[in-house]
Amino acid sequence: MIEQQELFVKMATGAWDTYVKRTTALLQKLSNEALSAPTAPGRNTGTYILGHLIAVSDGMLPLFGFGDKLYPHLEHIFLANPENAGLEKPSLNELREQWAQINSKLKTTMDALTPQEWFSRHNAVSAEDFAKEPIRNKLNLLINRTNHLSYHLGQMIFLS
Amino acid sequence: MIEQQELFVKMATGAWDTYVKRTTALLQKLSNEALSAPTAPGRNTGTYILGHLIAVSDGMLPLFGFGDKLYPHLEHIFLANPENAGLEKPSLNELREQWAQINSKLKTTMDALTPQEWFSRHNAVSAEDFAKEPIRNKLNLLINRTNHLSYHLGQMIFLS
Repeated sequence: MIEQQELFVKMATGAWDTYVKRTTALLQKLSNEALSAPTAPGRNTGTYILGHLIAVSDGMLPLFGFGDKLYPHLEHIFLANPENAGLEKPSLNELREQWAQINSKLKTTMDALTPQEWFSRHNAVSAEDFAKEPIRNKLNLLINRTNHLSYHLGQMIFLS
Repeated sequence: MIEQQELFVKMATGAWDTYVKRTTALLQKLSNEALSAPTAPGRNTGTYILGHLIAVSDGMLPLFGFGDKLYPHLEHIFLANPENAGLEKPSLNELREQWAQINSKLKTTMDALTPQEWFSRHNAVSAEDFAKEPIRNKLNLLINRTNHLSYHLGQMIFLS
């Protein structure tokens, strides 16, 4: 059964890796000019979505118990406020670098988790609530984050 | 350990249910007129994406061993050809009904699968290949299909 646990971890982390790779491939294809355009008239730019994805991935570090965020200042710009709040954004070159860094950091730390650790609670749920709802584990968070990533990739593809 | 197997299934099917619900809620909010517009200039209409999602979900029936497709004629229009091929599409009222039907059928049949069956091969992989790659199971297919659905939901939201 340990084998099956490992298999399930491989399924969920494999899906995450796939969508990170697809997003990275799209980013490499897009110039900074293309990326800074709205994904559709009146909708978020590629820049905002990229910053938003970095901020969400960065938030996974403390949720997974991997330490502090690398880029805590992104939360205010890309999570707490919508793009039309008009806040100044980091340059696309900085964001591209941060996208690479956060994914590399997540990959290294996620690769070191045992299946048992994947099925332990993430830090947004209390030990008490987790006892009642064991579904609120780290791996389930990753499954949700993968769907969030693919949702926004579907939008960024409109820039290509 | 049966318990943990059940937990995996609950995680993956729960994510699927969530995105089906979100998509259904968006469809209910959108008029036929709104849905028939392009999601962005020069991109697929909501009609095409809805037909595409129905066709993909319909394809899960034979892949899961649940019997034949309900709407095999959708494959030619929404999978084998892009929207700009200019093929005649079913009406939005028909598509809305088919979306409800295929989800209801999938839900009933998926609810009846045991965890063991979820980890068995889907019908696009041979028994030989599956022995080498047990990751190619039904549950993994569902995880991938959920990401596919959320990808297109991210686009359809532009119609709202």
